[in-house]
Amino acid sequence: MTYNLKPDAYPLLFIDESISRSNIRRMTRKIRSHGLVFRPHFKTHQSLKTAEWFRNEGITAITVSSVKMAQKFAGSGWKDITIAFPLSMNEIEPIVRLSETVDLSVVVDMPDQAAALSAALSREVKFLIKVDTGYGRAGVRPGETAAIEAILRHTNNPLLKFNGFLTHTGETYHAGSEKEIITMHRQSSALLAGLKQTYIGRFPGIIASAGDTPSASVADDFSGLDEFRPGNFVYYDLMQWQLGSCRFDDIAVAVICPVVSVYPERDEALLHCGAVHLSKEFVANPDGTPNFGLVVPFKDDKWLPPEGDDHLNRLSQEHGIFSTRSEWARQLKPGDLIAVIPVHSCLTVDLLQSMA
Amino acid sequence: MTYNLKPDAYPLLFIDESISRSNIRRMTRKIRSHGLVFRPHFKTHQSLKTAEWFRNEGITAITVSSVKMAQKFAGSGWKDITIAFPLSMNEIEPIVRLSETVDLSVVVDMPDQAAALSAALSREVKFLIKVDTGYGRAGVRPGETAAIEAILRHTNNPLLKFNGFLTHTGETYHAGSEKEIITMHRQSSALLAGLKQTYIGRFPGIIASAGDTPSASVADDFSGLDEFRPGNFVYYDLMQWQLGSCRFDDIAVAVICPVVSVYPERDEALLHCGAVHLSKEFVANPDGTPNFGLVVPFKDDKWLPPEGDDHLNRLSQEHGIFSTRSEWARQLKPGDLIAVIPVHSCLTVDLLQSMA
Repeated sequence: MTYNLKPDAYPLLFIDESISRSNIRRMTRKIRSHGLVFRPHFKTHQSLKTAEWFRNEGITAITVSSVKMAQKFAGSGWKDITIAFPLSMNEIEPIVRLSETVDLSVVVDMPDQAAALSAALSREVKFLIKVDTGYGRAGVRPGETAAIEAILRHTNNPLLKFNGFLTHTGETYHAGSEKEIITMHRQSSALLAGLKQTYIGRFPGIIASAGDTPSASVADDFSGLDEFRPGNFVYYDLMQWQLGSCRFDDIAVAVICPVVSVYPERDEALLHCGAVHLSKEFVANPDGTPNFGLVVPFKDDKWLPPEGDDHLNRLSQEHGIFSTRSEWARQLKPGDLIAVIPVHSCLTVDLLQSMA
Repeated sequence: MTYNLKPDAYPLLFIDESISRSNIRRMTRKIRSHGLVFRPHFKTHQSLKTAEWFRNEGITAITVSSVKMAQKFAGSGWKDITIAFPLSMNEIEPIVRLSETVDLSVVVDMPDQAAALSAALSREVKFLIKVDTGYGRAGVRPGETAAIEAILRHTNNPLLKFNGFLTHTGETYHAGSEKEIITMHRQSSALLAGLKQTYIGRFPGIIASAGDTPSASVADDFSGLDEFRPGNFVYYDLMQWQLGSCRFDDIAVAVICPVVSVYPERDEALLHCGAVHLSKEFVANPDGTPNFGLVVPFKDDKWLPPEGDDHLNRLSQEHGIFSTRSEWARQLKPGDLIAVIPVHSCLTVDLLQSMA
C-alpha cells in the first residue's frame, strides 16, 4: 500500500499508493465527465513511478513547469507535454531539441518570447498565451488586446501554432471558503472563455486551459473550458485539507521521522525534520502562529488521524521543533516514530525525493 | 574568481571563490587569535571543493549537522568531526561505523541517547552535552543539574568519553543590533563557561564549545570558551548583511537567472527562481512585507551592489516575482541576467547544490 522513497535513513518520504491511485482515478473521471481534456500537472510528484499510475488511468497528456521536467518525462516515454511556465529567452535551444521528439506546447506572455521561438523552430510547436485572470503572478490581462495582438504578430513561422489561452487560478489557494474557491474559479473561467470566443473565428480550434487543485476538487461547473491541469491532488497536503479541497483520508503523503529529544518543561520535542526536508512553507494556526507541518501517529506503515493540535512550530536547517499538545504527543519518547503531514506537498516532495 | 555549480542551466548557483577564501582566512585567524580551536560548521556549504579552501588554511577539525554529512566528509578524508545535532536513537549503528575511521564527537541532551550509544560502542567516541543557553531549540538548561547527572550516569562504557558542553547561540540571528548580538553572546558564553567550571574538577580536560556566525563576526571577547563553530560566514547572505555580521562585499554567494517576463504596469517581473531554488526563507522589508531575495545587477561574472530596493516579493514552486523598484530594474528585458542575493545561504546552497 505504501512505498518509501528513501528506505535507508530518516526522515523518510512515504507515499500511500492506494490513496494516490484513488485520487488520480477520481480526478480523471471527474474532469473527463465534464467533457474536458485532463492534462495533470506533474510538478507535484516529479516521479516516474507515480507517473505510471496516471498512465494506468489512460492519461497521455501532461503538464510540467520547467524544461528540465519536460526532458525527464520525455525521456520516459511521455509524448504530449505542456510546459506551463512562460518561455524563457534562455531556453530556446533545449525547447527546439524537445520538439524533435515530443508534441510540445509552450506558454508565452511577451512578444519577445514568441519572436525568439518563431525564429528558431524546425518542427511544430504549439503555444498558448498565458492570461492573468486574477492571480497577479504571470500573464497578459484579459483586456490587454494590444499585448495579445503583439504576441500574435511575432509568430510568423507556420511551425509555431497558436493553440489558445491558458491560466492558473492560483488565488484559490488563499480562499477563505469553498464558496470563495467556486467564485474565483467561475470568474477566471469566464474571462478565459471570453477571450477564446473573441479569437476562435480567426484561429479555429483554439482552446481555453485552466487548472488548480482547489477548483478541480470543489467545483462542479467547468463550462467554457476545454482542458484542466491540476497537480497537487495527486497527494494533497495540510494546506488543501484546511482549504476544504480534500478529506484527511485523501492525503497520500507524509514524512516519517523519529523523535530525537523531548522537552516536557516546555511541551516541545525535537525531530530530525527541518527546512531542508519539509521546506519553510507554513499555514497559520488559529492564533496566528506558524504551523510547518501537522504531527500524527504512525503505526504499522500507516499514519493515523491527528490526536490534537500537534504541529511543528519552528524549523531550522535540520531541526524541527514539535509543539506537543495532545496526551499522545506528550507521552512520546526518543526513538518513537511519528508522521508529519506536510504543509505543501509539492515543495516537500521536491526536497525529499531529490535526496532519495 | 567565481565558479558556477550548475553550468548547463539557470538558475545557477555562483560562489565567489576569492571572497569565500578571504572570509575563511579572516575567521580562522580571528578565532585562533583568541586562543580557541576553530571547528567550522560545514552545513552551509556541504561542498568537498569549498572544504578544500578550509584545508588550505590548516583546518582539520569540523562540525556537521547530520550523520549523512559526517559520512560525506569522512569519505573525503576529514578525520575529526563533531555532529552538532542531538544523537538520534535511530542512528546508533551508522555512528558506531563512523567511529571506526573518524575521531568522532556526538552531542546528547537526554539520558536515553547516552545509554543507547554507551551500549553499542566498540571504539572511542567523545560526547558533549548540548546546553540550551537561551535559544530554546534543543539542549538541557544550565540549571538542570539532575538532567546532566542523569546523562553522565548513563555513560558507563569507558569508550564513551565526556568532553564538555556545547551550545548554539542561535538567538543572535534575530538580534536587533550588533550590541544585542554581543549581549546574547556574552550571556550564553558565561552560562556555558560556568557549567564547564562546575564539572572540570570531576572531568579534567572538558571544553566549552559555542559557535554562531553573528557572534563570530561581531564579538571580540571569547573568554571562557575553548572552541568556536560558525558556518554561515563562509558565504554570508542577505540576512547576515542586514544583521551587521558582514559587509555587502563579504557575501560570496548569489543565484544567477534570467528575467523571463516583465510587467511594467505593476512594476514586477518574473524570474525562473522559485521556492525549489531559493527556499521560502524571507526577511521583512521596512514595511513588513516579505523579501525572499535581493536582486542586483550581474555583469562580467560579478554581481554588483544593489541599485535600490529591488527584491523578490513572492515565490511559488518555480516562479519568483521580482518587485522592480529602481530605474535599473525597470529597464530590464526578457533574457537579461540578474543576480539574487539569497536570504539564507545554508538553505539555498542545499537546494541548488543538490540539483547541480
